Amino acid sequence: MKELLYGAAYYDEYMPYDRLDKDVEMMKKAGINTVRIAESTWSTCEPQPGIFDFSHVERVMDAMEAAGINVIIGTPTYAVPTWMVKAHPDVLAETVRGRGIYGARQIMDITHPVYLFYAERVIRELMKRTAHRKCVIGFQVDNETKYYGTAGKNVQEQFVKYLREKFHDDLDALNYEFGLDYWSNRINAWEDFPDVRGTINGSLGAEFEKFQRTLVDRFLSWQADIVNEYKREDQFITHNLDFEWRGFSYGVQPDVNHLHASRCLTIAGTDIYHPTQDDLTGTEIAFGGDLIRSLKQDNYLVLETEAQGFPGWTPYKGQLRLQAYSHLASGANCVMYWHWHSIHNACETYWKGLLSHDFQENATYREAYIIGNEFARLGEHLVNLKKKNDVAVLVSNEALTALKWFGIQNQAPGAAGNGGIGYNDVMRWMYDTLYRMNVECDFIWPESENLDQYKAIVVPALYAAPDELLIRLNQYVENGGTLIASFKTAFTNENVKVSHQVQPHILKNCLGVHYDQFTFPKKVGLTGEIISKKNSSSEAKVFMELLVADGAEVLASYEHCNWKDYAAITRNHYGKGQAVYIGCMTDEDTLKAVYKAVLPEADVEIPEYHYPIIVRKGTNDLGKTIRYFLNYSAVELEMPYEYKNGEELLENTSVEKGAALQMPAWGVKIVEEA
Amino acid sequence: MKELLYGAAYYDEYMPYDRLDKDVEMMKKAGINTVRIAESTWSTCEPQPGIFDFSHVERVMDAMEAAGINVIIGTPTYAVPTWMVKAHPDVLAETVRGRGIYGARQIMDITHPVYLFYAERVIRELMKRTAHRKCVIGFQVDNETKYYGTAGKNVQEQFVKYLREKFHDDLDALNYEFGLDYWSNRINAWEDFPDVRGTINGSLGAEFEKFQRTLVDRFLSWQADIVNEYKREDQFITHNLDFEWRGFSYGVQPDVNHLHASRCLTIAGTDIYHPTQDDLTGTEIAFGGDLIRSLKQDNYLVLETEAQGFPGWTPYKGQLRLQAYSHLASGANCVMYWHWHSIHNACETYWKGLLSHDFQENATYREAYIIGNEFARLGEHLVNLKKKNDVAVLVSNEALTALKWFGIQNQAPGAAGNGGIGYNDVMRWMYDTLYRMNVECDFIWPESENLDQYKAIVVPALYAAPDELLIRLNQYVENGGTLIASFKTAFTNENVKVSHQVQPHILKNCLGVHYDQFTFPKKVGLTGEIISKKNSSSEAKVFMELLVADGAEVLASYEHCNWKDYAAITRNHYGKGQAVYIGCMTDEDTLKAVYKAVLPEADVEIPEYHYPIIVRKGTNDLGKTIRYFLNYSAVELEMPYEYKNGEELLENTSVEKGAALQMPAWGVKIVEEA
Amino acid sequence: MKELLYGAAYYDEYMPYDRLDKDVEMMKKAGINTVRIAESTWSTCEPQPGIFDFSHVERVMDAMEAAGINVIIGTPTYAVPTWMVKAHPDVLAETVRGRGIYGARQIMDITHPVYLFYAERVIRELMKRTAHRKCVIGFQVDNETKYYGTAGKNVQEQFVKYLREKFHDDLDALNYEFGLDYWSNRINAWEDFPDVRGTINGSLGAEFEKFQRTLVDRFLSWQADIVNEYKREDQFITHNLDFEWRGFSYGVQPDVNHLHASRCLTIAGTDIYHPTQDDLTGTEIAFGGDLIRSLKQDNYLVLETEAQGFPGWTPYKGQLRLQAYSHLASGANCVMYWHWHSIHNACETYWKGLLSHDFQENATYREAYIIGNEFARLGEHLVNLKKKNDVAVLVSNEALTALKWFGIQNQAPGAAGNGGIGYNDVMRWMYDTLYRMNVECDFIWPESENLDQYKAIVVPALYAAPDELLIRLNQYVENGGTLIASFKTAFTNENVKVSHQVQPHILKNCLGVHYDQFTFPKKVGLTGEIISKKNSSSEAKVFMELLVADGAEVLASYEHCNWKDYAAITRNHYGKGQAVYIGCMTDEDTLKAVYKAVLPEADVEIPEYHYPIIVRKGTNDLGKTIRYFLNYSAVELEMPYEYKNGEELLENTSVEKGAALQMPAWGVKIVEEA
Repeated sequence: MKELLYGAAYYDEYMPYDRLDKDVEMMKKAGINTVRIAESTWSTCEPQPGIFDFSHVERVMDAMEAAGINVIIGTPTYAVPTWMVKAHPDVLAETVRGRGIYGARQIMDITHPVYLFYAERVIRELMKRTAHRKCVIGFQVDNETKYYGTAGKNVQEQFVKYLREKFHDDLDALNYEFGLDYWSNRINAWEDFPDVRGTINGSLGAEFEKFQRTLVDRFLSWQADIVNEYKREDQFITHNLDFEWRGFSYGVQPDVNHLHASRCLTIAGTDIYHPTQDDLTGTEIAFGGDLIRSLKQDNYLVLETEAQGFPGWTPYKGQLRLQAYSHLASGANCVMYWHWHSIHNACETYWKGLLSHDFQENATYREAYIIGNEFARLGEHLVNLKKKNDVAVLVSNEALTALKWFGIQNQAPGAAGNGGIGYNDVMRWMYDTLYRMNVECDFIWPESENLDQYKAIVVPALYAAPDELLIRLNQYVENGGTLIASFKTAFTNENVKVSHQVQPHILKNCLGVHYDQFTFPKKVGLTGEIISKKNSSSEAKVFMELLVADGAEVLASYEHCNWKDYAAITRNHYGKGQAVYIGCMTDEDTLKAVYKAVLPEADVEIPEYHYPIIVRKGTNDLGKTIRYFLNYSAVELEMPYEYKNGEELLENTSVEKGAALQMPAWGVKIVEEA
Repeated sequence: MKELLYGAAYYDEYMPYDRLDKDVEMMKKAGINTVRIAESTWSTCEPQPGIFDFSHVERVMDAMEAAGINVIIGTPTYAVPTWMVKAHPDVLAETVRGRGIYGARQIMDITHPVYLFYAERVIRELMKRTAHRKCVIGFQVDNETKYYGTAGKNVQEQFVKYLREKFHDDLDALNYEFGLDYWSNRINAWEDFPDVRGTINGSLGAEFEKFQRTLVDRFLSWQADIVNEYKREDQFITHNLDFEWRGFSYGVQPDVNHLHASRCLTIAGTDIYHPTQDDLTGTEIAFGGDLIRSLKQDNYLVLETEAQGFPGWTPYKGQLRLQAYSHLASGANCVMYWHWHSIHNACETYWKGLLSHDFQENATYREAYIIGNEFARLGEHLVNLKKKNDVAVLVSNEALTALKWFGIQNQAPGAAGNGGIGYNDVMRWMYDTLYRMNVECDFIWPESENLDQYKAIVVPALYAAPDELLIRLNQYVENGGTLIASFKTAFTNENVKVSHQVQPHILKNCLGVHYDQFTFPKKVGLTGEIISKKNSSSEAKVFMELLVADGAEVLASYEHCNWKDYAAITRNHYGKGQAVYIGCMTDEDTLKAVYKAVLPEADVEIPEYHYPIIVRKGTNDLGKTIRYFLNYSAVELEMPYEYKNGEELLENTSVEKGAALQMPAWGVKIVEEA
Repeated sequence: MKELLYGAAYYDEYMPYDRLDKDVEMMKKAGINTVRIAESTWSTCEPQPGIFDFSHVERVMDAMEAAGINVIIGTPTYAVPTWMVKAHPDVLAETVRGRGIYGARQIMDITHPVYLFYAERVIRELMKRTAHRKCVIGFQVDNETKYYGTAGKNVQEQFVKYLREKFHDDLDALNYEFGLDYWSNRINAWEDFPDVRGTINGSLGAEFEKFQRTLVDRFLSWQADIVNEYKREDQFITHNLDFEWRGFSYGVQPDVNHLHASRCLTIAGTDIYHPTQDDLTGTEIAFGGDLIRSLKQDNYLVLETEAQGFPGWTPYKGQLRLQAYSHLASGANCVMYWHWHSIHNACETYWKGLLSHDFQENATYREAYIIGNEFARLGEHLVNLKKKNDVAVLVSNEALTALKWFGIQNQAPGAAGNGGIGYNDVMRWMYDTLYRMNVECDFIWPESENLDQYKAIVVPALYAAPDELLIRLNQYVENGGTLIASFKTAFTNENVKVSHQVQPHILKNCLGVHYDQFTFPKKVGLTGEIISKKNSSSEAKVFMELLVADGAEVLASYEHCNWKDYAAITRNHYGKGQAVYIGCMTDEDTLKAVYKAVLPEADVEIPEYHYPIIVRKGTNDLGKTIRYFLNYSAVELEMPYEYKNGEELLENTSVEKGAALQMPAWGVKIVEEA
């Protein structure tokens, strides 16, 4: 990519009156150079089956091309038109709650031949009209695709075929691995396979979810194949991968295996939404960016992020700009808002765009104007930022799903559902603490083969994992790596079958601990050398394994009348490396102390700065080191600049080592080392 | 009406043994002069299809006629007999949750021909037997009618016909107004019209609810037409209109347009239930009474209110009497309890009547005895109280429904559903503050043409309104009126399409403010001249618009690092009038300060008394001013009597201006000016 | 029984590898002498319809027989195989939420002929293979049977037949008793009988639940009849009756009438699960044991209780042993764990057995080892403990169900559902207070004829009761008994029809009080002689009747401005006895004061010891008094031994009257009087 993309989704279809020329004018003024169009607009593009009307698409391309604005074409398939559902009611996904009712997007069965037939036809028609256009720089296939709980008869029959293949038609193997004998769930003939939606067996349930995730991979690569038939070589294929949604982008997407789904893309894209105002921390921008960048180990596109967003997110002065540079600091080459204008009807009326409903310049637009013009001025210094991180976080869809089932399986009052704590809470606890310490990291997956590239690997709650992966992790330590693994790691195999070996199974070797009981902590403190006396709130949270050190150094023990003899956190030297085990969830300060105790030995640098000052770095196309300084607070801060002399790009001033950087509230500095 | 009606619903059908003579004796002793019968008793009146048995009705009429007690006949149609559902299962309404199961009342499809066929027959049979009876003074058609969520195929097909008419068969117009292009919901052929139950489009959803409300109008006027064929001229037709239910009568009924539904009635009726014991404030009695009185701008009937009510409502000494006079003080000519005796089975066993299950005289009955005899003695002074209020509150079903959709559209955590705040919360915040200041008011509706009759109009959250209404409101101010409008007013048109003009749209003229952003307040204080230093709890709540005064006087601004430059509450002089805009929800004291700042200029009197002393007034049939003094507290209070000399009716003593009135705990005084 | 049974459920079917010999070895070491097998394993025993494979059962019997370990055979019927549901989807129960989906156990219609056909065949096959085996000491029919909400057409048609019989085909009688006239629910022809699942009539609803409970009785006795055809005379038939589940065994099982269901058993069995760690109190062990022992007034089997249980229940040191002896102290002859080993898949993976997933000796196993060897050594002193208690608690399924409907009928906010308080909360409030005072008791039921055997009878919330029972309770007092009845007692008859007599109906005589109103207390204190000044938290809770003493002594009155003239707790002398009425729920101290005020007069001994020291006693097979001293606390306590000289069995030391017993944390002493 040659320039930073700055833009917004644009819907000519939703306009209350003809705005196109005025909008282009306002875009140009604000430095916007890219729009995404057509996504979700099926009922406009194909008003009746086989009758196409791409006039909105055409006129927007015309206008943008004339104005020199790039266009990304989104296929319109993530919301189905009324005529399709009226004629074929069963294109709506049948989930555990039955078949849905027409209305929302993302409610169809993405495996249904009727849906696929119509989807293919409209994509081809759209491609024919857009692929050759100069302004069109790439395509987004579908939008935020998931499997929407699809679990009808057709899907379940595919699942049985999938299992027959996985188990080589060996029912005994399936019954054994999934433990189906329990509560008479044993399947003694393939034709007896029950409705999987009611299963109480976590192995079967998790496998079904894994299978459902493959439907997303297949659907996206099927779309990408069609697009590939038409697109020019210089045009990209992307998709906006999203995250577990907790009212904002929170963690690993449970319903999509990002690594697999992104294989068919030429560049990874994402949408990142996050709290703002007093709750803006930059964490989701960093987390989402680090994860999406790691998929292809390359720069990525932020295809959607909030402009004004929800009414509760209306940004404070400076925040929109801080956010934009934070995306770049993670390696994004593109920042696009959802969306240009606020819409006047329907369920996202208050997911507000750059412009409010009145289309006037407002405070948010005026800040975009600053950003857009800075991007244009500084783009060549900021585009294609490359990173080389020492730390990786290992994430796993399988572990996420399995840990959810673990929560379902804890049926005691208070404990059920792990006290509301899921996989992503553990992952974010480990990631966020690194973020706040300014230790940058990549993400890796169970399939990743580049373990040795990292000085340290952080492993949150890898509850389900194949032996093969555990062996590689053990080997990684032996080879000199630093492993920091949390509770629940290595407990079950990839089929969510609990190991009948002493825990933590294969990792027992490198970790130098074992345990045969665990519980949920109630008023259990932590004590030990790394626990600061000042941290009186140090306690075991939610999870708690009763560790017995087999040679490992005990970093912290439990403070409790009955559990005081057990270790809570240990560190073991093994081979050329070290391995840390954290047997319970803790407060942030305790985890920080663990990181500080072990990362330096792994030769990982821990900067002096910490949140709310965030420092992120990389190398630009000019081969120079770029360092972003981000003030995630409402107060002005002063910080010493401790790096090589360089130039602050935004204000175009030189900065010397040891000088003081003034960081305004919600402010940004970007220093390019000389 | 010549006398006050005092009475109870009476169900001979539910008696465990023959009580009729004993009950009539106890009624006479307590001064009860009216009973309502037959309502809900279909399965007794028509035990098998076409087989009628009105013996309970006949014997009660005989006994009441002999005793000189009036009878109101309720048609029995609000609960269907088992035989009807057994033979025609589809008379049960199909709602968004599917078709119901027999059991509760109010679960049928009030548009279903089978239901209407049987309903008409039983009403005609009942009318034949009752209309000519001397004791029968009027009829209640059905009971607390709503549409019960009915949304089956037949109802949806009617809805499409209704839309074709509304939009003159112009689908483009419909798609445009409702913004259906969003998420591919565009309807390109009428036959593609989707199941509306799943819609995510607030415009379509709100229109369907408006359509469903018309079903209630049609059903009630259909019943009234039948009754009209039989009834004598001196007999009335009424209905008990009820309110949004929050465990008690709370606000505007979302499922009925009271103004439209009451057109077929000769006198408005209502039921009002409210908390009691420590939570008795009189607010619901005043609110419900003011609203129902305003429908026909005339006196009304309280057809149901609690005697003992729920176990948690067992009244304290004096409360039953205080309540009864509070109804009269709002203009009621009738106070009837639901119901005479507590029933011994089924789901309202503990909605207790005047008598407990043992039928003995109890504390509540003994207080009714006092009331009944006072009513008889003072009736000619109290009946037909007429009011002339200076203030009106504008309420709108359309705004209520649309604001509910606004809540659905705010999807951010914490903010979704407007923090639990709906239209009626805003309306009650504005109404209740007036009530506690003893500023009496009427209600008006979007269709009301008597705006100029009022010195001030209070407009809570008129989120959806046609331009025509906004123009009239603007004109009202220009003509000299005082308008007090809250946040969200004028935001969308009658089709819940957000205006693309600068907000607050047409009212910008009279209000002298505009805004293009809004948010939800978090720890945002209020500051300004009208904000008392003593009111340290003054803060913006739930809603918060970032107002920019265009000439308006700023009564209060936001206290917040980022929002401090925006106005919160403004007042503007426009034409001969003034217009106040309140950009955020506030505590009661702040709103009181706003009222105090602007109502005197509108020449609206604000009495010295305030809650817990409530003062309500009117003119009686003798042309004299009647003033009720109501002590809504558990302590005895003394208050100066600041009006013309008069006579306290209950104790038959003269009262002079400047004298002290002793108000016992939960006590009442009624002064007739000389 | 000759020896204490100590054991665990054992599932060879669920093993990840062949463990049988190793397990037997570990069992023998730990003193385990009994296993329960085959329960729930239908899909393993009968892999395809009519194809049987009992190899797991056979090989376990072989191994156990060789090792001298007893076997209890459980019929496998409480979870159905996939093939049955695939072929006959309608064997799954249709409940008020529709028909279920395959997966969980306990979801079939236990009246369905298809299910019964297959169940009978597999039971017969199992019996043929097991009944003659030496090691097999008894059979458990099904497991934790309930009716699973079954309410399909077939079940409802049976219900109508049941009602026709109950009411001798007299519909008027049914309509009268159930009060069906209300809301037009009257049934005027049997063929009009509506779907009972939607009923809003508590009488009809409660009767249906009572009918559904009879399905459990019929199902279990049908299984017992089959087993009886095969079993030897020395083999028992049992069932594990369970309790209302609130994450642990809480109270009377709503879905089973234990007294009726246990008639077909030769010995009562149960499962008792309870909180542990800091929340271990022994209450559930005592409550469950007292109730199950009372069914047949004989010793009983604890067929399941937790070893490690949920992760949150991992026992503290000493707790497993304390629990085991607490079961014996209630009269259990058997303590069996669910289960031997923790399972590696499915939804009870974390309901952990004696062994963790790694099968190693762990802390819990090591404590079982101590228990097992003590049981073996002391069994003849501890087995067949007989009790003679002075106090009985009267419980009733009908009252439980009816009070649930009472809660549904209180529709006011906050009060609905009785503030979350159900029948079992009241029962446990009255039982638990006795437990903590070390007053041991039996349970009795409405049908029990042994009232006169008790010095005092405690009656919690007997909201629904036939007159016949109330007459007997009144007579019991007249004859010299002490009755302690709570609020809500005697309010409705057995058909949940509220009495139209003055309350508390027939018991008014012995209680010497009446009331005609009641409410829910809000900040209502209690005052009176028995209310200690120190107990400032004494207040009326949830329920509150406004009592008027008719000769009864007032033990406590309400402290409240409006209710101060009403009594809250009264005691009346009547005939040769006394009767106490508690008109409101209270804190524990107040109830304790009531017990202390009246039990001594009834000649019931109240020990000096109280919780956390629990003392339980009985007579052993040697005719000697055995007394258990249980320390339910985490601290060591010293207590004086105030009984006759004896021998402490566990430590084999003599104990003299007046000596001090040292009670370790979670410790046990057992003294056999000389």
